Amino acid sequence: MLDFRNDYAQVGHPKVIQALVDHGKKIYPGYGTDQACQEAKEKIWKALGLERPIYFLPGGTIANALAMTFQLRPYEGVVTPKTGHIVDHEAGSMEALGCKLLYLEEEDGKISPEALEVFLSKKRGVAQVLPRVVYISNTTELGTVYSKEDLEKIYRICKNHGVYLFLDGARLGSALAAEKSQLSFKDLPDLCDFFTIGGTKNGALFGEALVFNREDLAHNFDRYMKQRGVLTAKSFLLGLQFSALFTGDLYMENARWANARARDLSQGLVDLRLSLAYPPESNQIFVLYPKEKIADLEKLASFEEDGERDGQAILRFVTAYHTREEDVEDLLKAIKDLGC
Amino acid sequence: MLDFRNDYAQVGHPKVIQALVDHGKKIYPGYGTDQACQEAKEKIWKALGLERPIYFLPGGTIANALAMTFQLRPYEGVVTPKTGHIVDHEAGSMEALGCKLLYLEEEDGKISPEALEVFLSKKRGVAQVLPRVVYISNTTELGTVYSKEDLEKIYRICKNHGVYLFLDGARLGSALAAEKSQLSFKDLPDLCDFFTIGGTKNGALFGEALVFNREDLAHNFDRYMKQRGVLTAKSFLLGLQFSALFTGDLYMENARWANARARDLSQGLVDLRLSLAYPPESNQIFVLYPKEKIADLEKLASFEEDGERDGQAILRFVTAYHTREEDVEDLLKAIKDLGC
Amino acid sequence: MLDFRNDYAQVGHPKVIQALVDHGKKIYPGYGTDQACQEAKEKIWKALGLERPIYFLPGGTIANALAMTFQLRPYEGVVTPKTGHIVDHEAGSMEALGCKLLYLEEEDGKISPEALEVFLSKKRGVAQVLPRVVYISNTTELGTVYSKEDLEKIYRICKNHGVYLFLDGARLGSALAAEKSQLSFKDLPDLCDFFTIGGTKNGALFGEALVFNREDLAHNFDRYMKQRGVLTAKSFLLGLQFSALFTGDLYMENARWANARARDLSQGLVDLRLSLAYPPESNQIFVLYPKEKIADLEKLASFEEDGERDGQAILRFVTAYHTREEDVEDLLKAIKDLGC
Amino acid sequence: MLDFRNDYAQVGHPKVIQALVDHGKKIYPGYGTDQACQEAKEKIWKALGLERPIYFLPGGTIANALAMTFQLRPYEGVVTPKTGHIVDHEAGSMEALGCKLLYLEEEDGKISPEALEVFLSKKRGVAQVLPRVVYISNTTELGTVYSKEDLEKIYRICKNHGVYLFLDGARLGSALAAEKSQLSFKDLPDLCDFFTIGGTKNGALFGEALVFNREDLAHNFDRYMKQRGVLTAKSFLLGLQFSALFTGDLYMENARWANARARDLSQGLVDLRLSLAYPPESNQIFVLYPKEKIADLEKLASFEEDGERDGQAILRFVTAYHTREEDVEDLLKAIKDLGC
Repeated sequence: MLDFRNDYAQVGHPKVIQALVDHGKKIYPGYGTDQACQEAKEKIWKALGLERPIYFLPGGTIANALAMTFQLRPYEGVVTPKTGHIVDHEAGSMEALGCKLLYLEEEDGKISPEALEVFLSKKRGVAQVLPRVVYISNTTELGTVYSKEDLEKIYRICKNHGVYLFLDGARLGSALAAEKSQLSFKDLPDLCDFFTIGGTKNGALFGEALVFNREDLAHNFDRYMKQRGVLTAKSFLLGLQFSALFTGDLYMENARWANARARDLSQGLVDLRLSLAYPPESNQIFVLYPKEKIADLEKLASFEEDGERDGQAILRFVTAYHTREEDVEDLLKAIKDLGC
Repeated sequence: MLDFRNDYAQVGHPKVIQALVDHGKKIYPGYGTDQACQEAKEKIWKALGLERPIYFLPGGTIANALAMTFQLRPYEGVVTPKTGHIVDHEAGSMEALGCKLLYLEEEDGKISPEALEVFLSKKRGVAQVLPRVVYISNTTELGTVYSKEDLEKIYRICKNHGVYLFLDGARLGSALAAEKSQLSFKDLPDLCDFFTIGGTKNGALFGEALVFNREDLAHNFDRYMKQRGVLTAKSFLLGLQFSALFTGDLYMENARWANARARDLSQGLVDLRLSLAYPPESNQIFVLYPKEKIADLEKLASFEEDGERDGQAILRFVTAYHTREEDVEDLLKAIKDLGC
Repeated sequence: MLDFRNDYAQVGHPKVIQALVDHGKKIYPGYGTDQACQEAKEKIWKALGLERPIYFLPGGTIANALAMTFQLRPYEGVVTPKTGHIVDHEAGSMEALGCKLLYLEEEDGKISPEALEVFLSKKRGVAQVLPRVVYISNTTELGTVYSKEDLEKIYRICKNHGVYLFLDGARLGSALAAEKSQLSFKDLPDLCDFFTIGGTKNGALFGEALVFNREDLAHNFDRYMKQRGVLTAKSFLLGLQFSALFTGDLYMENARWANARARDLSQGLVDLRLSLAYPPESNQIFVLYPKEKIADLEKLASFEEDGERDGQAILRFVTAYHTREEDVEDLLKAIKDLGC
Repeated sequence: MLDFRNDYAQVGHPKVIQALVDHGKKIYPGYGTDQACQEAKEKIWKALGLERPIYFLPGGTIANALAMTFQLRPYEGVVTPKTGHIVDHEAGSMEALGCKLLYLEEEDGKISPEALEVFLSKKRGVAQVLPRVVYISNTTELGTVYSKEDLEKIYRICKNHGVYLFLDGARLGSALAAEKSQLSFKDLPDLCDFFTIGGTKNGALFGEALVFNREDLAHNFDRYMKQRGVLTAKSFLLGLQFSALFTGDLYMENARWANARARDLSQGLVDLRLSLAYPPESNQIFVLYPKEKIADLEKLASFEEDGERDGQAILRFVTAYHTREEDVEDLLKAIKDLGC
């Protein structure tokens, strides 16, 4: 079975697993106070070019939810594109923490600076929730990518209106590795108020690094993590993993590989005269596909259906650090053989 | 440095780590639907002697908080001994989910059936929170152990009053391995409504198995986990670990070893004419110790201070599956050398 | 100044105030256990034609929020038309209680049975909030009215899908008094699972009666009210008011009067060749009006602006039990004099 | 039946009711923006000797809960004496808003400066909730009174530790009127960070005035009130009532009368050789009474039982602005006749 379902289907990159093996007999203190977390932070600081508060959380949903709600007064909410991951893929995690989501129109998963400006400029009465954080993800849910210039425009608007910009980097590696983005780690401190560096979808067993570009947003955040059950006893496990990912260029190598396989795939799909649903900019490729052939394709490959357009299904194929070149070739061959 | 600080100081038992290595290249579906979780459940079912809904959660605080609050109407609360882990060691995790804790007097960390009967029999008006779940842990925060007979009495009272009994098994292995408890896995389905089997403190990298003895308490629990950010993408990691712990007798072997080392230690402390603060029944030993010698002892060993009594400090020493016999000997020697 | 801003601008109907005066020296027990509440319930039961659990709450926002969230498991949400009062007029009250709102397209403030059927038929995964309650209001935020036939269709769909239907009756009197609705109090127990009878906007000083058509939805609701601070000490004040409103036909008289004045107004506006923004079916009239004349009109009358269409502002005029016939005439004259 | 059950058993003081009658036909804007609220604030400012942000809320439970939780970060909690009203008389309202209560030993309902100093000086780790607000009530639940000197000491400690002091003034009138307190309205801005002036139990139909002594604690509080359903549409009703209570000396007259009747009663009880359970300092009198005579006394008078001591029941008698001198005489006679 060819696996294109998602980018979190294997235990983790061999080098990450090996780090756990190598340090298996050491003694670490608990709750994030250990040397492994410290070492991981230092490596990330080097990548960013400066020191900022960093917290390691076990997963993306809780990293998003806690990072953003921590910044809110009770009457404040979060602006999000309608296709944002927090809208319909996190089981109401934001609302469960008391936060109203304020929906913004978007295009191919991305919000436009113009629409954001209009939205933030509206007058709001006492019966209306005030926008306080703007949520975007890079890459987006639809595999598209914000460029450095996009982010500069959006962040400027946020700052003008006194709201925070949060960048969900569950697939940040893929965004940085995307040609279109013209982004590097060193740009991120200037482009948003806080962001995550996703590990789970880029080679870690689990874990996201949450970076606050402003110290004041982070004060006592570990207490909130503990309260919400994600300041784990063995936090050093997260430290060991991120340390491995930021040793050499592993984090970006993984992402570049995944993107390269996705590029092969999208090019192949176009060559087969299939239509892509969204611009193929990262490691997620969405393609229009005849509904009647899905059952046959599912016998050969795993993937997700994600809506429909013009009478055809939209299929999502995801590549990862472990996707082989021949996997892509085999998938393209399978699609070709089924006729399209 | 001799490590007696806690039982979650190392990555995990070598066999558990090896399981992750061995399955590092397999493809798994996400969110708890994988074959590894299924296999782990089957092994636990075998230990329990029957099939019950099981969920794997990444940590103990969130397992406690979600398992119990899932059973509550808004006006209902949780009865807990005053020294319960949920009272002052989880950063208000229960209250953060809207739950009032109702405190019950206890002795050496354990509630008595008599006090519980009185408490549950009180009349409560519209302005008072109703008890709905009784929380106990086995072993307790003070290292003491509920016996099978204790649990039978407590559970009978709970059932008579129509409240649920939850057993926090963060250190369940140690409780089952304790001579005093006369308990085995097969007893647990008859002794409470739901309970956890702690992995983190007994050889896993992370993770607790939550077992519902009643199907109706578990309905859609995975949705609640997702909402609260702990239905992890790579749930199969938890399946792999629990599968390893329940292969052969590893889970109980780990616990028995830890208890044996604690027994050696408590016997040695008594031989040194030190007074134990609570009965030495599991892998946590609490001893009265002169405050003025703590600084010197800390140069040789790590441990926690946990209150004081009669002018002396109470020190906690914890053993684990990886505590060596010579570690205990060395600790006892260090204490002896410091004079006591 | 002509007042058309809202229907809660005066203390209350003289007969309601008089009831408070008349019973000013009696002694009542607290927290809803009094004879005044009992009497009010009996009068409402008579109007409904049967006995159902009724709770009196001080305001509409809290009545909506508590009534609906009381029915939810943590992973369940509320379906609402996008213009629902709970969406953007209650400061995030639903989300503050942990509830995600699931938006449904609507027309003139009303949801269609067809759209509801499609929405409830969707398959939802573990990461998606499940619909549990459908929220509608009658009259709607846009002054339109659901007819008996509308409600029958909607409720049938809800029952087929196992979700509850809640009807926000903040302006229920106006809906029942509307020609279009063909509804009476006696119909309501068969048309939804629970609903409110609004007092605040129809002659009470404050207060809404919440009626549960099903006993099981109401169990211990008073405890939830107490917890959320709205089981008031002097609940008998609500009993006295609703008793007054349901003495004779006062509740419906108030509503019919308000509707009649709105009808006069909407007819007059049409005669002046102004366009109505929505069908004029109740005591709220929305009219397109030139933006440049608003400032002058505001010198003579109070009203609200509520969006815009085709380059014109949408003005909302609301009538009440105390709106005089000459008030409407004067408003029409003022508009005419300003030229339109 | 002689009524000594509570101080919220009648509609309200005749002058307060009359204010509603007198203004029954005026037009007011909604949501606290009206002239009646403004007028009430100005009268309270005059009593306080300075201008401070004031909000009017419909009841005491919600005023306490919102005022305090508004000041908290998620990991912060509220220190309260164990007999505090928020502990066991508000149905878990504080915890429902996510707030952990931290219990402090007390005597006769009052916390001591010494105990508070010790409690606030404790070191707290990442797994422990941090104290942020200290809750006291004046008068207390047990009818005792904090003096000006008491409050000065307590507030100094709070300020030293950087925590806020909140004073629940549900029965503030009675506290100010108590000989022991040596307190006046003008003292309050210097003795705590925020406090309530209770209306419900001192002549209003309903309502509490919440005064913030610091501007920064009040910012956007009306939005929180709206979200939690207590920024009522007809907020002017609260303005009218507080305006009446602060016209002339009505608020203090009511309280002085109630206290005087309580003094008559406590003196009479002592003369009958009954033992008071707590010092008789305000309008609540607690007396030890033989359990076997309660049933007979209940035929003649209403009151509450509130625990027991030394084999006798503790009865609570409450006086109010409407308690007549002959009511007290009749109660004492009834008790005497039953023999004690």
